[in-house]
Amino acid sequence: MKSRLNVGVIGLGRLGRVYAEDLARYVSNASLVAVADNRADVAASFAQEYGVPKWYECHRDLLNDEDVAAVAVITPTSTHKEVVIEAAGRGKAIFCEKPISLSIADATEMLDAVEHSGAFFQMGFQRRFDTGYIEAKHKIDAGVIGTPVLIALISRDPFAPPLEFCDPKASGGLILDMGIHDFDLARMFVGEVKTVYATGGALAYPEMKSVGDIDNAVVNLTFENGSLGVVQLSRNAVFGYDIRTEIWGTKGSLQIGYFRHTPVLVMTKEGIAHDVVPHFMQRFEEAYLMQIQDFVHNALNGGEPSISGTDGIAALQIGFAATESWREGRPVAVRYENGQAKAP
Amino acid sequence: MKSRLNVGVIGLGRLGRVYAEDLARYVSNASLVAVADNRADVAASFAQEYGVPKWYECHRDLLNDEDVAAVAVITPTSTHKEVVIEAAGRGKAIFCEKPISLSIADATEMLDAVEHSGAFFQMGFQRRFDTGYIEAKHKIDAGVIGTPVLIALISRDPFAPPLEFCDPKASGGLILDMGIHDFDLARMFVGEVKTVYATGGALAYPEMKSVGDIDNAVVNLTFENGSLGVVQLSRNAVFGYDIRTEIWGTKGSLQIGYFRHTPVLVMTKEGIAHDVVPHFMQRFEEAYLMQIQDFVHNALNGGEPSISGTDGIAALQIGFAATESWREGRPVAVRYENGQAKAP
Amino acid sequence: MKSRLNVGVIGLGRLGRVYAEDLARYVSNASLVAVADNRADVAASFAQEYGVPKWYECHRDLLNDEDVAAVAVITPTSTHKEVVIEAAGRGKAIFCEKPISLSIADATEMLDAVEHSGAFFQMGFQRRFDTGYIEAKHKIDAGVIGTPVLIALISRDPFAPPLEFCDPKASGGLILDMGIHDFDLARMFVGEVKTVYATGGALAYPEMKSVGDIDNAVVNLTFENGSLGVVQLSRNAVFGYDIRTEIWGTKGSLQIGYFRHTPVLVMTKEGIAHDVVPHFMQRFEEAYLMQIQDFVHNALNGGEPSISGTDGIAALQIGFAATESWREGRPVAVRYENGQAKAP
Amino acid sequence: MKSRLNVGVIGLGRLGRVYAEDLARYVSNASLVAVADNRADVAASFAQEYGVPKWYECHRDLLNDEDVAAVAVITPTSTHKEVVIEAAGRGKAIFCEKPISLSIADATEMLDAVEHSGAFFQMGFQRRFDTGYIEAKHKIDAGVIGTPVLIALISRDPFAPPLEFCDPKASGGLILDMGIHDFDLARMFVGEVKTVYATGGALAYPEMKSVGDIDNAVVNLTFENGSLGVVQLSRNAVFGYDIRTEIWGTKGSLQIGYFRHTPVLVMTKEGIAHDVVPHFMQRFEEAYLMQIQDFVHNALNGGEPSISGTDGIAALQIGFAATESWREGRPVAVRYENGQAKAP
Repeated sequence: MKSRLNVGVIGLGRLGRVYAEDLARYVSNASLVAVADNRADVAASFAQEYGVPKWYECHRDLLNDEDVAAVAVITPTSTHKEVVIEAAGRGKAIFCEKPISLSIADATEMLDAVEHSGAFFQMGFQRRFDTGYIEAKHKIDAGVIGTPVLIALISRDPFAPPLEFCDPKASGGLILDMGIHDFDLARMFVGEVKTVYATGGALAYPEMKSVGDIDNAVVNLTFENGSLGVVQLSRNAVFGYDIRTEIWGTKGSLQIGYFRHTPVLVMTKEGIAHDVVPHFMQRFEEAYLMQIQDFVHNALNGGEPSISGTDGIAALQIGFAATESWREGRPVAVRYENGQAKAP
Repeated sequence: MKSRLNVGVIGLGRLGRVYAEDLARYVSNASLVAVADNRADVAASFAQEYGVPKWYECHRDLLNDEDVAAVAVITPTSTHKEVVIEAAGRGKAIFCEKPISLSIADATEMLDAVEHSGAFFQMGFQRRFDTGYIEAKHKIDAGVIGTPVLIALISRDPFAPPLEFCDPKASGGLILDMGIHDFDLARMFVGEVKTVYATGGALAYPEMKSVGDIDNAVVNLTFENGSLGVVQLSRNAVFGYDIRTEIWGTKGSLQIGYFRHTPVLVMTKEGIAHDVVPHFMQRFEEAYLMQIQDFVHNALNGGEPSISGTDGIAALQIGFAATESWREGRPVAVRYENGQAKAP
Repeated sequence: MKSRLNVGVIGLGRLGRVYAEDLARYVSNASLVAVADNRADVAASFAQEYGVPKWYECHRDLLNDEDVAAVAVITPTSTHKEVVIEAAGRGKAIFCEKPISLSIADATEMLDAVEHSGAFFQMGFQRRFDTGYIEAKHKIDAGVIGTPVLIALISRDPFAPPLEFCDPKASGGLILDMGIHDFDLARMFVGEVKTVYATGGALAYPEMKSVGDIDNAVVNLTFENGSLGVVQLSRNAVFGYDIRTEIWGTKGSLQIGYFRHTPVLVMTKEGIAHDVVPHFMQRFEEAYLMQIQDFVHNALNGGEPSISGTDGIAALQIGFAATESWREGRPVAVRYENGQAKAP
Repeated sequence: MKSRLNVGVIGLGRLGRVYAEDLARYVSNASLVAVADNRADVAASFAQEYGVPKWYECHRDLLNDEDVAAVAVITPTSTHKEVVIEAAGRGKAIFCEKPISLSIADATEMLDAVEHSGAFFQMGFQRRFDTGYIEAKHKIDAGVIGTPVLIALISRDPFAPPLEFCDPKASGGLILDMGIHDFDLARMFVGEVKTVYATGGALAYPEMKSVGDIDNAVVNLTFENGSLGVVQLSRNAVFGYDIRTEIWGTKGSLQIGYFRHTPVLVMTKEGIAHDVVPHFMQRFEEAYLMQIQDFVHNALNGGEPSISGTDGIAALQIGFAATESWREGRPVAVRYENGQAKAP
């Protein structure tokens, strides 16, 4: 019988519940031994529903629990620093949901603490575990499209978050908040980004101007290897969730992503229509599971993390540079070298 | 905490292993407490790998195990009768993979034993649990296409089984073996079938004639409510697994099924190509899990089976009639009424 | 400068006008020198609009016109015999729209007259000139799919004709009227049909029963070379015009036909939808032009007709046999050999 | 009978021959009365093949021909100025293929001459006459997608031109040469462009650096009304010709363009593949015809040109600004107001 990893989940928001449920039910070599949420009733009822032995109101109590060998940190981004540094101090293996932080300085401090403690640390960027992206990576590595020269990425939400969640100080703003997945994929498929240029506006939801955010953006990327990239971000894909990537190489190209949800086509007098992917959970449900399984596997087997803290900082750095570019109307150099953040 | 169902799996062939793995890992309210296979080493190694407490060489020993409340019967069809009748005698809840039997008389005897014992019995037809088919059923029930008047079903395998598995005495022959899924779907979507007419031939693999089987068939269906149906079956979809259904109604129509596997399109000098579904396991992996979860749920909660033994016999009866039609070159009446098999 | 063919068009109904306009404007080596329609005003106004030098009320006057070297016969089917025999007697090259006749005896008499006169005679089956079908034929001839073993054809209209046009005595009934195109394609792609079996019903428009016609049919084909075929016909593709063909071979398969009209996808809150082909004219507009160009080319150059009168009879014979099969509920042998109609 | 326009075509290169053939054969209210090409044998043999009454070696002789009422100017861009100004002086109606010129000053001089002469002048941008784009424009005008806020355009060629045709002094360079169609569409769908930012590189054909051109570019657009745009250009769509446009609005979006050429899907052991559009002539053949028909119609009826000289300059100005942006690595303001070019 295989060894199992005892995991605690900190933060039971929408996404935290997904990871906790995956760990409770579907990850065969993990045991969900504890959950923590500062809303005690949420933690208690989740524990009861899923048969989790222990629940805590304070994350610190979970971190002090000797039964817990690993933690998934799914709390608001602003608390990542505190929780991760404490978890590292307790020697827990750590899974940290993106973005690692909204501050390069904080993120660097977190990774220093992790390195000092020797704790296992893996970032969350679930798209890397999606069947489509995995298959695309295999095909590129196999030389199917030659050398990639241009990557075009699209992320569109079906609606804007409520205005109170759009404050860029908390969310990082559209470009960072939505684009960070695309910036991470761009690095995975093509390499490090050298400079960015972004345009944007509050075009579909003008009320966003009141909080200083936008709802549409186009971000140009120039890679250190000379390749090109472009990211389109928007909140007005009113029909559903639109995630697509194209990678163009010297010998061919790949298109990843589609609009259909179920393989059902409906043909009526109104025309021919097919289902769409409503939002990110329907699109990436399986990828979230694959990702947490991968973390458990790596933490158990002492391997390298599939996505490192440095990856977390690198994507963040691109997002900051792009946001700055949008604000200032000029191209901006991304301040890191080989994935290492540089002081501004 | 919910109650759990203790399940034993009998038969660890390709499909038996799928169900057993699903029960061991992914069905939260089930415990896989025992497996049985007449190849002792297969049973032992599976039990070890998946942490199953007990394994048996003889299905009878598993049926005698008091810890086992329910069994999944995934043995060769020719043994279904013996295993199911014994399981019913032991009061186990029973999940029986399709086809229920290759004999109406045997199947009737099985269902009589089940009824007499009061055991819970559910047939396996996994397509009913596929996302696409579920969604289609919902849309039809919601009136989206009006009244269905024609159903067209397609099942194509990427290759023929080895000749030794094509003996119609064991497999039932192409029309029954492949078509039974389509006959079941036809009943689910449209209703009872009144008459059938079938044509067929060993056209892509002429060597099949030596064992008396064919590799292509077209089966016309006439339903008791006057609707029409047509089923295409073949073994020469050389590119992959091709499962499609179209349902045409008075106000619209539905198309279920597609060729793509991952959402990746590859564009090279050779043209534009996309991945395909290689075979049934890739197409219906999730449906198999949904199906066994559904069985566990129904067995625990004492409800009606989602697919009854009568459903199992009805699909079989259509397959027999179609095979007879092919052999004799004339339309044949399906000998059941309201899902009840009639004596020939 | 190339020689030109002086053509007259007889019959200016919907389709006759299409051919006449094509000849007037787009067929470079033809001159439309005369039109005839028994509605004098229709003939006169068409001639004026398109600059046609002469118009006639009676087809016989057009046939007597020495300037006319060739005629396109687009009159009601019931008049084909009279017009074609007279045209042959006058030595005109003849293009005859499908169906050649609603009587094998009449059609045979027509072809005898044509043969006796030595006139050039070409049947109209425009689908043979559609880009998709041409490309498919090339690929099959090039061996891309090996030997064809099954052909599946679909023709669906978006609505039923007015009841007064559904009288099978005039239209031939659904199976003949709609299916004749598919029967012709089946012969072109696979070979001669040996037996047919058909089911059908007035399912979407029950009022059709009053005139003795149906709105849905499924026709099984068995070819003389052992291959299989199936044709689906219906009048209730409420979203538009649905023409599809699949040809399955020993090494691959081809799918011809699609739902989209323009390459525009519309994505709104109601979902994702695309345009459809409204009806046959939008689908086959270009094929009609290609077909009449082909006739002009062949008539000028004295070659073999692309589609012969024998082809016209063969498709008709399949339609009759299938209609008989539907009426009598049994498989029916198609009474021709190598495209030659046999006496019943 | 309608009046006809006597047209002369100047320049019988690849595209000139297309227009000339369209005028000779398919444009019903035009007569192709003369062609001119400085390769006398080309002009003579075209005239003979298509029955054109007169041919000239020198465009000036054609312009002096009193029978010629209108000219299509399809000569190399560098000669547009001379030919158009002379044609205007002769009072001919003028159709001018894109780009109008490679110099804003020259183009302005041309339009001044046209205005002074009162000649009818229409620019060529054939995509505006493509079925897909026309349909999209109708849907936007009908409010189907609300207010457009972002336009994303893609143009990819299947290969690079020979190096000797890549000299940016003659071609304008990738961004201008390929992008001008997209800049024109951007203006048609969204409005005037305010600033541009471009990145690019010789990534798939490094030898292009030797002539100072590139093979990939991404151009960001900011419109005067605040909307956003992005244009992707490349020469390495090795599978075929890739022209796509997406327009995202406040209430929905439109996708125009697709990869398939014929509606044939080929399924073999190598996978599932479909035909593609090889190059621009196959994609826009019909649009070229529609465009020249539209010119003839407008010239005959004295209406406004569908695409004005000002449109020609505006697209050119965007191309110059984007090229400058690429060279200098900074955003560049487009120097025109309301379609009027401003002095730099």
